[in-house]
Amino acid sequence: MVEISDVRAAADRIAAFVRCTPVTTSRSIDVRVGARLHFKCENLQRGGAFKFRGATNAVRSLEPTVASRGVATHSSGNHGAALALAARERGIPAFVVVPQSAPRVKRAAIAAYGATIVDCEPLLADRIATVERVVAETGATLVPPYDDDRVIAGAGTAALELIDELDGALDAVWAPVGGGGLVSGTAIVVAALVPSAATVAAEPAAADDAARSLATGVIQPSEDPSTIADGLRTSLGERNFAVMRRHDVRVVTTSEEAIVAALRLIWERMKLVVEPSSAVPLAAMLEHPELVRGKRIGVILSGGNVDVATLAPHFG
Amino acid sequence: MVEISDVRAAADRIAAFVRCTPVTTSRSIDVRVGARLHFKCENLQRGGAFKFRGATNAVRSLEPTVASRGVATHSSGNHGAALALAARERGIPAFVVVPQSAPRVKRAAIAAYGATIVDCEPLLADRIATVERVVAETGATLVPPYDDDRVIAGAGTAALELIDELDGALDAVWAPVGGGGLVSGTAIVVAALVPSAATVAAEPAAADDAARSLATGVIQPSEDPSTIADGLRTSLGERNFAVMRRHDVRVVTTSEEAIVAALRLIWERMKLVVEPSSAVPLAAMLEHPELVRGKRIGVILSGGNVDVATLAPHFG
Repeated sequence: MVEISDVRAAADRIAAFVRCTPVTTSRSIDVRVGARLHFKCENLQRGGAFKFRGATNAVRSLEPTVASRGVATHSSGNHGAALALAARERGIPAFVVVPQSAPRVKRAAIAAYGATIVDCEPLLADRIATVERVVAETGATLVPPYDDDRVIAGAGTAALELIDELDGALDAVWAPVGGGGLVSGTAIVVAALVPSAATVAAEPAAADDAARSLATGVIQPSEDPSTIADGLRTSLGERNFAVMRRHDVRVVTTSEEAIVAALRLIWERMKLVVEPSSAVPLAAMLEHPELVRGKRIGVILSGGNVDVATLAPHFG
Repeated sequence: MVEISDVRAAADRIAAFVRCTPVTTSRSIDVRVGARLHFKCENLQRGGAFKFRGATNAVRSLEPTVASRGVATHSSGNHGAALALAARERGIPAFVVVPQSAPRVKRAAIAAYGATIVDCEPLLADRIATVERVVAETGATLVPPYDDDRVIAGAGTAALELIDELDGALDAVWAPVGGGGLVSGTAIVVAALVPSAATVAAEPAAADDAARSLATGVIQPSEDPSTIADGLRTSLGERNFAVMRRHDVRVVTTSEEAIVAALRLIWERMKLVVEPSSAVPLAAMLEHPELVRGKRIGVILSGGNVDVATLAPHFG
């Protein structure tokens, strides 16, 4: 299992490549929620999401001869773009299996970073079969989007920077949960550096597989859920689930209406373009202010890769 | 005429109230333009625009007995919101004359900051007549949106921070021009601190009154122009025009198509919510890359107060 030392090693390994993203605040949102929120702006990360941290850690961990054959993954978007960018920077090929249902902006980003895109059907089983075929044909190294120790350690570096910037003065860190890469990396860091603080995972009520998984003790599949937060439709990974249980991560769910309201607050008050997944923690706080009232909360804005034209009708 | 010493005095006066906004870069936009661009993020300024600097400088310049009667202005939006916020922070009333055509988001911001909103017709003459009536009735001090020395000095503090952060390593600073508050303040600072650098004003070709004014040597009115850049529809102020002429500010115009393309680049690549006016300098560079190729350019992103729902059709 990933330890804080692995996250620190990842931070050293990726320091020259990732952006130390800003932490920002909003007085008007603080008033609305009744807490002091510190937003870690991973939407401003290279590649447009925290995913670049894990992808870079994985790519930079490979021995040269292995690396030269490239890397491969399946991804609903951000991890694919992140891996493509990380591979291009190391000068190695990337093969990205992308479901045909992925947003235009995310497909375009992957292509712009020079990866070879391999189309597949949207179901997880189709993605896995396709990427296994690609790996067999090319000799590329599989870098899964979240269920991977290198990816978890890399994702944890966002919380490392956040806690460092705030000198540990936090009562909790909230992050969205899809596959669990961000939340598991975050939980490892929070538990090690601020043991008194909680790690809270926020997810759409319409894709509440993480809540059901923790409640039952067994990973519950997420079966084609309908939520605007397209980055959170995946099921939890095994490693991610194990870390979440070990560190008592709590899951809070939220409605689609609250996600849109939170998204709009972040766009209009903070002037930040974030994708719907990034708004899920704030949405959960707006619906459950009693969980955060009077507290100092870190919030990880996970990414900003969004097709404005697609999203606009929700802002009408 | 405003001097660099006035801008420095303004910086000291407003330091405790304004945000020192970040300066950010985008590799992909640099590649597109062929220059190194440093964006000063005044969309992240309090009140959502650089206008808060000038408004705060004006409000904090008033003697207590004068201040207690409040401040008044007419504004298409951002200056009104900025003055409302600056007045609230000093605990004095603000009266803001707002044309009925102003965007919903901007009206809402003014109201949210506690100002008294006075409706008027959209023409400049109507606005001036209405604000003069308000001043006569209340004893409030008029704080014009741009044609005012305190406002110009305050606006110049954005360029002061930008140049300071980059240690003066700039070949030019570009800013949008409407009434000319931002550009005149910027020109004063650039001329004093980096005399080798140019100040460039960008405006929509559909609202090219600044270009026509400089060409003819006489302020040309902007008569109800049709541009998406709603913050740039006003005519130049007398003081602003004089400063622009004194410091040889060049005006570059740009098409509506380029403004939308630049707006989209800033939203999708930089993940920043900016209003269309903020995209006008980048738009002008995209259309005239020969003006900036190989250079180090500061760009002031003037504001981020935009109604996403209204803007969305342009992103289709």
